[in-house]
Amino acid sequence: MKVFAVIMAGGVGSRFWPRSREKSPKQLLKIFGDRTMIQNTVDRLDGFVELKNIFVVTNKMQKEEIIKQLPEIPTENIIEEPFGRNTAAAIGLASVLIRKIDRDAVLVVLPADHIIREKEIFQAALQSAALYADKEKGLVTIGIPPSRPETGYGYIQIDETESEENIFKVLTFAEKPNYDTAVNFVASGDFLWNSGMFVWRADTILSEISLHMPELSKSLENIASAEGTSSFEKTLLDEYGQLRSVSIDYGIMEKSHKVFLTKGKFTWSDVGSWEEVHQLSHKDKNENSLIGNVYTDKTVDSYIYSPDKFTAVIGLDNVIIINTDDALLVCKRDQAQEVKKVVDFVKLNKMNDYL
Amino acid sequence: MKVFAVIMAGGVGSRFWPRSREKSPKQLLKIFGDRTMIQNTVDRLDGFVELKNIFVVTNKMQKEEIIKQLPEIPTENIIEEPFGRNTAAAIGLASVLIRKIDRDAVLVVLPADHIIREKEIFQAALQSAALYADKEKGLVTIGIPPSRPETGYGYIQIDETESEENIFKVLTFAEKPNYDTAVNFVASGDFLWNSGMFVWRADTILSEISLHMPELSKSLENIASAEGTSSFEKTLLDEYGQLRSVSIDYGIMEKSHKVFLTKGKFTWSDVGSWEEVHQLSHKDKNENSLIGNVYTDKTVDSYIYSPDKFTAVIGLDNVIIINTDDALLVCKRDQAQEVKKVVDFVKLNKMNDYL
Repeated sequence: MKVFAVIMAGGVGSRFWPRSREKSPKQLLKIFGDRTMIQNTVDRLDGFVELKNIFVVTNKMQKEEIIKQLPEIPTENIIEEPFGRNTAAAIGLASVLIRKIDRDAVLVVLPADHIIREKEIFQAALQSAALYADKEKGLVTIGIPPSRPETGYGYIQIDETESEENIFKVLTFAEKPNYDTAVNFVASGDFLWNSGMFVWRADTILSEISLHMPELSKSLENIASAEGTSSFEKTLLDEYGQLRSVSIDYGIMEKSHKVFLTKGKFTWSDVGSWEEVHQLSHKDKNENSLIGNVYTDKTVDSYIYSPDKFTAVIGLDNVIIINTDDALLVCKRDQAQEVKKVVDFVKLNKMNDYL
Repeated sequence: MKVFAVIMAGGVGSRFWPRSREKSPKQLLKIFGDRTMIQNTVDRLDGFVELKNIFVVTNKMQKEEIIKQLPEIPTENIIEEPFGRNTAAAIGLASVLIRKIDRDAVLVVLPADHIIREKEIFQAALQSAALYADKEKGLVTIGIPPSRPETGYGYIQIDETESEENIFKVLTFAEKPNYDTAVNFVASGDFLWNSGMFVWRADTILSEISLHMPELSKSLENIASAEGTSSFEKTLLDEYGQLRSVSIDYGIMEKSHKVFLTKGKFTWSDVGSWEEVHQLSHKDKNENSLIGNVYTDKTVDSYIYSPDKFTAVIGLDNVIIINTDDALLVCKRDQAQEVKKVVDFVKLNKMNDYL
């Protein structure tokens, strides 16, 4: 069994404005420690996937910086989509290209911007999933046992009967629930968080795409045929121009009958907002996380980032302050989801310097 | 009667950090509108004091910028103290120098960093005070009828019997009171705010200094004798080196028996903090005062200054945000007095770029 990794690095992460910008999206930032999130994602595969088998799907805007951040990954493994068409297309594209390298390739599909703490448990989960996916030709998703009634994640319901070590049949996918539903999900014991991480053989996912998304399948096969020829770029552009934007969850996972789940019993977060960054960061005795040149007085439970400029904060609690070179965010922690509205405002007003 | 103005511009105004710095103190900033506070102070004398009779007492650090901001004032009227020795010395120095120009000079002594709204009422109060000071050789202070039990100002108690039009005998000076005392002061009707503005003949204040501060008097006379000679700078430096730092209130006003008060029935503030700036500023329907490139969402009752960089504020109330080129202040409005502690911290840690 040869395992390949497909790291999805197309998003911007507008909830991380003003640090995240089109050219420096969330996955390319050092949010925890001195490695960027995509570097951590690659580091976490060490010993499980060979570097030459790690692929990244991204866009023109980010490609150069990704090559810089991941010098150990072969440049030809950085796949550039002409434009974003959601996860079904991105995963499909990587799958047809990797299938050309190895017809028996097993893929682990990973977002570039998640945090995962225990590398060994993570790799063990991937290993169980990969063995099962290779043997039984199933689509295996990594589900996270929920630690709280989170309304920001989708949920996956499983049949609790273990069909193999740490492999469960998936019954249903559930959208992000309201709070009461989330409480019920967590209480039930058979609902897990949908982490957006998947394990499958390249040929399995491509045959499921051919079954449930035949138009995408046709485009992917055209692209695969053109690969290695002079018409590749044009074909890629033409086919992508016709694709619909569909997530792998909606397009395949919710429709397929071959979906299984491995429980990921490691610390995990999709780090969806500055609020989560605060929760996951090291904090001082005032429950503050202070990065850079920061003075505080009567200030608690706050996340303050000011690497270059001097920032003084007096008499505040539960705030997020992100002081970058050209832009500043001051936000109450429970409003961290609203940061994406600033990006909408910036777009609407064509303030492109701040995008 | 010839009236001279002495504008005191020696302070830094550390409560206005990070806008106020050693080289750009409060009085040299445009805090309201498009003229600086010292420019407004000069403008306010228009029609009452001739430009050639307006003097400014300042220090080496600020002199150049003051000359730039007040091109209409003769450069030789900008008096440079070698170092700050509080208001008794500053006023004494201006007084001996102006007395040499006109032995009958009447001085109006004004801080450079106050806000006063109604120019006509202000000039009328100065006029009453100047006529009385010239005729009766009294020390006349401008008292402001209190509009609230402010604990940040000193108070002056008067004998309510008017001895002349808008001239009252002063009974006592009171330090900044606690809240209960301030309530009693305001209720009593015979306590006024001490504005730090004074009117007197140069020879009157100098003879009071000779009576109550004989050492200062001796130094001032030595400086006056040296004026116009090549030894002036050295004499000034030597004498200032020996002076104690004493306020005119403590050194003279609280001891003299010739102290009177004119009521200043105009809108006045010493603009002691960003909180007062918010109170005095124009506000929008959310009670926000927004200066520069500012986005707000669910944010009310706040003062946000960001002239160059883009600032986004979400879910906050009653905050002061001052976003300058190299430093940022985020402060709860009721903590605005604590800003001076940031300046102490900056000094202590020798972060001189931020001073």
